[in-house]
Amino acid sequence: MKIHTLGCYAATPRTMTNPTAQVLEIKNHMFLIDCAEGTQVQLRKHKVKFSRINHIFISHLHGDHFFGLPGLISTFRLLGREKEMHIYGPKGIKEAITLLLKLGDSWTNYHLYFHELISKESELIFEDEKVTVHTIPLTHRVYTNGFLFREKLDDRKLNIKAVEKYGIDKSQYRNIKKGKNVVMDNGDIFPNKKLTFDPPKPKSYAYCSDTAYMPSIVPQIEGVDVLYHESTFLESEKHLAAKTKHATAKEAASIAKEANVGQLLLGHYSTRYKTIDLFKEEAQEIFSNVALADDGKMFEF
Amino acid sequence: MKIHTLGCYAATPRTMTNPTAQVLEIKNHMFLIDCAEGTQVQLRKHKVKFSRINHIFISHLHGDHFFGLPGLISTFRLLGREKEMHIYGPKGIKEAITLLLKLGDSWTNYHLYFHELISKESELIFEDEKVTVHTIPLTHRVYTNGFLFREKLDDRKLNIKAVEKYGIDKSQYRNIKKGKNVVMDNGDIFPNKKLTFDPPKPKSYAYCSDTAYMPSIVPQIEGVDVLYHESTFLESEKHLAAKTKHATAKEAASIAKEANVGQLLLGHYSTRYKTIDLFKEEAQEIFSNVALADDGKMFEF
Repeated sequence: MKIHTLGCYAATPRTMTNPTAQVLEIKNHMFLIDCAEGTQVQLRKHKVKFSRINHIFISHLHGDHFFGLPGLISTFRLLGREKEMHIYGPKGIKEAITLLLKLGDSWTNYHLYFHELISKESELIFEDEKVTVHTIPLTHRVYTNGFLFREKLDDRKLNIKAVEKYGIDKSQYRNIKKGKNVVMDNGDIFPNKKLTFDPPKPKSYAYCSDTAYMPSIVPQIEGVDVLYHESTFLESEKHLAAKTKHATAKEAASIAKEANVGQLLLGHYSTRYKTIDLFKEEAQEIFSNVALADDGKMFEF
Repeated sequence: MKIHTLGCYAATPRTMTNPTAQVLEIKNHMFLIDCAEGTQVQLRKHKVKFSRINHIFISHLHGDHFFGLPGLISTFRLLGREKEMHIYGPKGIKEAITLLLKLGDSWTNYHLYFHELISKESELIFEDEKVTVHTIPLTHRVYTNGFLFREKLDDRKLNIKAVEKYGIDKSQYRNIKKGKNVVMDNGDIFPNKKLTFDPPKPKSYAYCSDTAYMPSIVPQIEGVDVLYHESTFLESEKHLAAKTKHATAKEAASIAKEANVGQLLLGHYSTRYKTIDLFKEEAQEIFSNVALADDGKMFEF
């Protein structure tokens, strides 16, 4: 599982800082999460093979999470994309994108599917054999969802030495990987555990931005491997966080601690601070395993 | 008169090239012409004092001329702008911008005035004491206008030595600058020419992008000091120019020659070519005074 943080600063794009966009690589998927202005250039700059993106998740319709989407969609058209694209985001996203394409007489020649979100409860919005994606309803100035990405448990790993030793026919392998025991011709039963190894523990990633401090999300994100939680402010500006429905680094760390996550990734920093190290210092007073997202930084878990 | 060419490449933004945006400084105005994705970062990068922009002219609603506008409008809000902003562009621009602001619950706290264009004839869209702006209807795949910016003739310059020599009262200066003769108490008439110098010749700038080769614009732009004319292609790709309703460098030069302009500025280059010098070479076979726009380049006339 890899997370490319293409942009992770709050509000406006600047010469050296980009607003929010991430690419999550998970089980052969390349999911784009949020798409601020400039995202397509960030994708090029950091050499992300963005033709592989087939699913885009938009947390909310503030410009610093969304204004790069019309351009990215148009660029895919200009690059001759044929594969369908799925876009998940708040209700209204379809109207906005289709209006812009209509005004430019620039319909895509690939299929564009919109999955508009309105629920205030968590819901399953994507599922295939390998991965699920659920929304994490958040609290912000407009309707906002985080996203919880979970790998499914893989098949059990075949113990090649064991199956060969017991002369088990290859036609049985598929069932064995699915966890079934093997009944031999003579009636003997080989318990699955003797023929397989445990699959790797499925990984999980919770993306929570933008949001006020919201302890009610803790049960849903309990035990995830990585939590990205916004920390627009430090505690010294807690009043601004409350006013604008953002969180502080300390609050993000409290969520991480309560949810007993593996690692906390901070981001969505206000540019008022001289160094983002201050966010890490503040968070680590509460929760030790903290990393700082930064534009162009890649994390592998 | 200064022209900051912030971006002048066709189609998608890339790591090293930006789509169209320009700032024209003329008579204390700072006019933004087109606003592709990334324009606000280009404005910062090239240290243009963009709080001085009060008028934005959008040629057409293709993304590479327009998708930076929602973000720029939002950034002005975040920066606490109070001055009104005027936006001139094709019908539909108001619906698009207001929808995006509505979805983000991000209304501007400054006044935003839209001047939507529908006419296929040239029209006066801005005028004050110093400057006029007319549309230049162009031919492209969607409704498109170029813009013709003209300084008005300044007042005549007072010949201070002369007015003092003849003892003319200061209360007369305003009329003298307006070109009036002076009648002295004894009935003598001082002809204005003895008391003033000619004002500088007013400057003019014609911006024509995007457009197919369109000789019918020649009478309108006759004799302008500077013509920016798109040259997406070279003659070797003339078939693509015809198909996509763009122009070649040679065609741009033909317009410049026919209209007898002072200087031709080329731009809106397709990124298929290894060097933009090829555009200059091709154009100069027709018209000698050619300059190449490039991202971040500033021209002073």
